[in-house]
Amino acid sequence: MKVALIQQKFHNNKQKTVEKTLDMIKESKQKGANLVVLQELHQSQYFCITEDTQNFDLAASYEEDLKFWSDVAKKYSVVLVTSLFEKRTEGLYHNSAVVFESDGSIAGKYRKMHIPDDPGFYEKFYFAPGDLGFEPIETSVGCLGVLVCWDQWYPEAARLMALKGAEILIYPTAIGWFDEDSDAQKQKQLDAWMTIQRSHAIANGIPLICVNRVGKEKDPTGVIDGIRFWGRSFICGSQGEYLKVCEHEDEVVAICELDMSQISNVRNIWPFLRDRRIECYDGLTKRYLR
Amino acid sequence: MKVALIQQKFHNNKQKTVEKTLDMIKESKQKGANLVVLQELHQSQYFCITEDTQNFDLAASYEEDLKFWSDVAKKYSVVLVTSLFEKRTEGLYHNSAVVFESDGSIAGKYRKMHIPDDPGFYEKFYFAPGDLGFEPIETSVGCLGVLVCWDQWYPEAARLMALKGAEILIYPTAIGWFDEDSDAQKQKQLDAWMTIQRSHAIANGIPLICVNRVGKEKDPTGVIDGIRFWGRSFICGSQGEYLKVCEHEDEVVAICELDMSQISNVRNIWPFLRDRRIECYDGLTKRYLR
Repeated sequence: MKVALIQQKFHNNKQKTVEKTLDMIKESKQKGANLVVLQELHQSQYFCITEDTQNFDLAASYEEDLKFWSDVAKKYSVVLVTSLFEKRTEGLYHNSAVVFESDGSIAGKYRKMHIPDDPGFYEKFYFAPGDLGFEPIETSVGCLGVLVCWDQWYPEAARLMALKGAEILIYPTAIGWFDEDSDAQKQKQLDAWMTIQRSHAIANGIPLICVNRVGKEKDPTGVIDGIRFWGRSFICGSQGEYLKVCEHEDEVVAICELDMSQISNVRNIWPFLRDRRIECYDGLTKRYLR
Repeated sequence: MKVALIQQKFHNNKQKTVEKTLDMIKESKQKGANLVVLQELHQSQYFCITEDTQNFDLAASYEEDLKFWSDVAKKYSVVLVTSLFEKRTEGLYHNSAVVFESDGSIAGKYRKMHIPDDPGFYEKFYFAPGDLGFEPIETSVGCLGVLVCWDQWYPEAARLMALKGAEILIYPTAIGWFDEDSDAQKQKQLDAWMTIQRSHAIANGIPLICVNRVGKEKDPTGVIDGIRFWGRSFICGSQGEYLKVCEHEDEVVAICELDMSQISNVRNIWPFLRDRRIECYDGLTKRYLR
């Protein structure tokens, strides 16, 4: 299977940003990709940088967006992983990854389960926690364990996807630095972020695709300066080994051939699923055990 | 808190090996360590390289071993993490980490929960799976989440320790390469092993100490050539950042000051425990979900 990830900037408005995305999907297809993965909330700025009810308007086009990306998947005949701002009803929104089959049909949807909230990332204001659980999505290119951004810090999420048959983990993401952080702190954050995702590939013996936004976006309210999204999208194999790593600052179409037979080779010699002590894991369903 | 890890070789017999360990504990103490961590099954060769009932004799001295290491902890006034072959009764053995308080008392014991079994690592033959659960051990230097080797591939184990209050994760280990593996494969295995452990520090916001054996040990039956234990013991902080990394081939006493106030700083800005979707984690207690 040939996969493409599209790491991009926000180009000041939806139309220009989506045009750029379409160019990059076209390039992905020309280079032979069967699966194309877009970054988190790829149609807009990362609006969660501030709490503003005006931003809910960005979800008003959700039904049109579905139609639009369905047409794109069909036109290029690729399985397409999108990340959309879903309006479910008045006052109820989700951060949703919608996966389109190469014929334009909806293969499945994942609503972001773990919702962050920290300065500049006010997602609990915008998104209700997902209520579809951790269900991988069956497609013509395999069973996709699609999770979103903050989920990537939770080994529980990746494990549940794997236990339900996911053959690949996919994380559309929007994470970055504050310019005022020290270089050492920035490096630590980046390393931690790459490390924990690679660990999900390792723990579950399946490859992983992570697509992160790039470029600086300002906080319109000036409470903070802004976020410099650090790019560094990557693809790793089922032992966590890097297959592709993107740059910090540039828009990138990264293409990678994934050898899915690796899963079986790796899992047979590192059979972690065999030895789980499931009778002793009840505590995982508790908030804290003291 | 100042911690020491002792990475060492097997010196052909128990007496010489233990003498060397004592030298290194003495050095640790002289350098100011309050906590000393030894590697997996540090008194003997890694006997699980083959299945041989004669090797159960190595556990016959378990009660004496307890007394011996208790005296060592008291003599040097350090909290000491040992890894012993525990004989519980005839035909029932465990791979147990016993933690001694600096006054020589037993602070607690952990019986290895996840038991591996693959060529050269026939542990299911020797060790009954632990029945003490994932319980951290309270000591004068903090609450220690002691796990052993194969456990390090399981995010569940680290999480349960953290949920029960562990302030540091500790992994005595014996892992190595087969000389006939390619350099690329060796590097992949080593990277995966370091990555997944660092991820446990990151996911739980606590530091981690991993102590691995070093040196080549032959398979006495000749079924395989032997195992070249890859050393590379390391200590990382609560964002998974390396604080110490040991060499591949040498015996090492590695000393490191751990700033335990980091835990609170890191957890307050990366509050992963806050957002766990515990009501959706039931599946983790199942073997597989298809």
